[in-house]
Amino acid sequence: MSINVLAICGSLRAKSTNRGLLRYAQGHAPQGMKIHLAELLEVPFYNADLAEKPAAVQQLLKQIADADALLLACPEYNYSLAPALKNALDWASREPGNQLLSGKPVAIMGAGGGMGTSRAQYHLRQVCVYLNLHPLNQPEVFANAFSGGFNSDGDLTDEKIQGLIVKQLHALQLWQQQLAK
Amino acid sequence: MSINVLAICGSLRAKSTNRGLLRYAQGHAPQGMKIHLAELLEVPFYNADLAEKPAAVQQLLKQIADADALLLACPEYNYSLAPALKNALDWASREPGNQLLSGKPVAIMGAGGGMGTSRAQYHLRQVCVYLNLHPLNQPEVFANAFSGGFNSDGDLTDEKIQGLIVKQLHALQLWQQQLAK
Amino acid sequence: MSINVLAICGSLRAKSTNRGLLRYAQGHAPQGMKIHLAELLEVPFYNADLAEKPAAVQQLLKQIADADALLLACPEYNYSLAPALKNALDWASREPGNQLLSGKPVAIMGAGGGMGTSRAQYHLRQVCVYLNLHPLNQPEVFANAFSGGFNSDGDLTDEKIQGLIVKQLHALQLWQQQLAK
Amino acid sequence: MSINVLAICGSLRAKSTNRGLLRYAQGHAPQGMKIHLAELLEVPFYNADLAEKPAAVQQLLKQIADADALLLACPEYNYSLAPALKNALDWASREPGNQLLSGKPVAIMGAGGGMGTSRAQYHLRQVCVYLNLHPLNQPEVFANAFSGGFNSDGDLTDEKIQGLIVKQLHALQLWQQQLAK
Repeated sequence: MSINVLAICGSLRAKSTNRGLLRYAQGHAPQGMKIHLAELLEVPFYNADLAEKPAAVQQLLKQIADADALLLACPEYNYSLAPALKNALDWASREPGNQLLSGKPVAIMGAGGGMGTSRAQYHLRQVCVYLNLHPLNQPEVFANAFSGGFNSDGDLTDEKIQGLIVKQLHALQLWQQQLAK
Repeated sequence: MSINVLAICGSLRAKSTNRGLLRYAQGHAPQGMKIHLAELLEVPFYNADLAEKPAAVQQLLKQIADADALLLACPEYNYSLAPALKNALDWASREPGNQLLSGKPVAIMGAGGGMGTSRAQYHLRQVCVYLNLHPLNQPEVFANAFSGGFNSDGDLTDEKIQGLIVKQLHALQLWQQQLAK
Repeated sequence: MSINVLAICGSLRAKSTNRGLLRYAQGHAPQGMKIHLAELLEVPFYNADLAEKPAAVQQLLKQIADADALLLACPEYNYSLAPALKNALDWASREPGNQLLSGKPVAIMGAGGGMGTSRAQYHLRQVCVYLNLHPLNQPEVFANAFSGGFNSDGDLTDEKIQGLIVKQLHALQLWQQQLAK
Repeated sequence: MSINVLAICGSLRAKSTNRGLLRYAQGHAPQGMKIHLAELLEVPFYNADLAEKPAAVQQLLKQIADADALLLACPEYNYSLAPALKNALDWASREPGNQLLSGKPVAIMGAGGGMGTSRAQYHLRQVCVYLNLHPLNQPEVFANAFSGGFNSDGDLTDEKIQGLIVKQLHALQLWQQQLAK
């Protein structure tokens, strides 16, 4: 039996290095874990005036409901969160009783400047408090995308970060088991 | 001569209480200040793959360029920023040399739960560091929208918050003068 | 069998309302939980130049080592942490491999102004990431000490906060069991 | 005529790299700026029960009162502020009307791990909001003390960081002039 992890990338760019982190994770999931990638391109801004949920939102919410854990690739824009990632969580949070998110384990990674999106990741962790998500403390994954480490398609080539991702996925697997008891 | 303040509301909802704060501000600007409201409904998520800027983005950027100061109505979604507000700043930050934003004075207000969006406002202040925006320290405006204080159209009726907004606009006027020297 | 919870108060004042929160918790621990209060009055600032650990530090570290969980009363001074609380954690973090703290469950409460020390509590949660402490997400305990709710000795009299503390202690007990598996 | 800058180091260690940053700044202040170093070794934790201010506190407060600007060397302990630095500001904040601090310009620098104390510096910036201090946005000074850049006495040898400090001091001088008008 396998656990189902939904990976969400905060950057919409096709060749995003954050997407590259998730592709690497997807290809190196430990035995007993399957990683699916969410698609945010058609997810509009949350707006309480919208009469019904667009199809892309419905699909995202179904994928979150089906996931045993979340893997969030968190870019940093101007020292805080990428709106597309925050917006995906905001949509999910509107379900009755926050039932889609509450209690789920989460792993966070990010690729960006010299701080590796750390500033955005701490904002994301504050969001997790309200949503009752349980982010892994360690290892944190901070990839510097401005000094090599990725090819021009956004694929991860840095071996140190590759190793860290494998380590994080194992930690997520254990964390999910611990929280599921 | 009058200074030109651009007000940006992070909530897209028509009857948003955050929009109500800005309407109140607009109607009570001190002599020598004109407040215009930006429109974010058609502004898409920033995406580096977009070949050109949509019309709504171009209009927003022009309004920011023309503004002497910004007035930001900052909702709090899940303990952090509303994506639409963050996204507006992200678009503006992509201009060469951050010339649209750098050095501008800013006032921040917000309506939400019992903490009055304070958690989101501190995230916004961190964004201002990178963008070289200069947010007013005081007075902070935290409106509780869940215990009265607004009518059903989102109009501000709480006299204490009304007074605080007037005070904040005066402080913004002085702050703009100080920074413009 | 009972779990052992160490309560640490960030305020050094004898009649501190934060200390009052901990006294209330101590008197209302659920069956199967014993709460002890740490004493920080004689704990000096951490300083790597100190040749050896003062007796008060040694006692604090022993109490932390013996604890199954921590209960932190977190005042807010100037929008961030009380130095005495942060310093206690800093001392504990210097043990080899962070063995005193790593993996421990934590509950956080605070008494202060209108925001109930929330700003400081989010800073404390960021500290927990590095220390691999596991703070409860919910319920958060934010007590307003400036509008009643405590007597002049710092004893908690607000029934709503009293109920919240009882609820938090139960949640801590379950969280400790979950993490101990 | 010269402006008077008070430098405060959050680390108490004699050979602290943060102290090294301040020594470098002191030796390279621009014309028209004098930098003095505060001494925190004898400043106790703030405690409202203390009947009177210890001599070391009185001296610190006098130095702050006399300063036209502050230069803060901000270590990072466990992803947040060094208690000694926070405590110095807490003491100063207790003067009537926050008159010692309100309105003062501030520059922030820090030496630490790979992130150069950035996590602590953003907490410090939140403190500045309440204290009505005006921290420079840019340049931020993040020195990595774990990969060279300092000698064994804590003296700064990294030329890039040396240049950044000189640049920051010039920016502080201009910022002070702007705010003083």
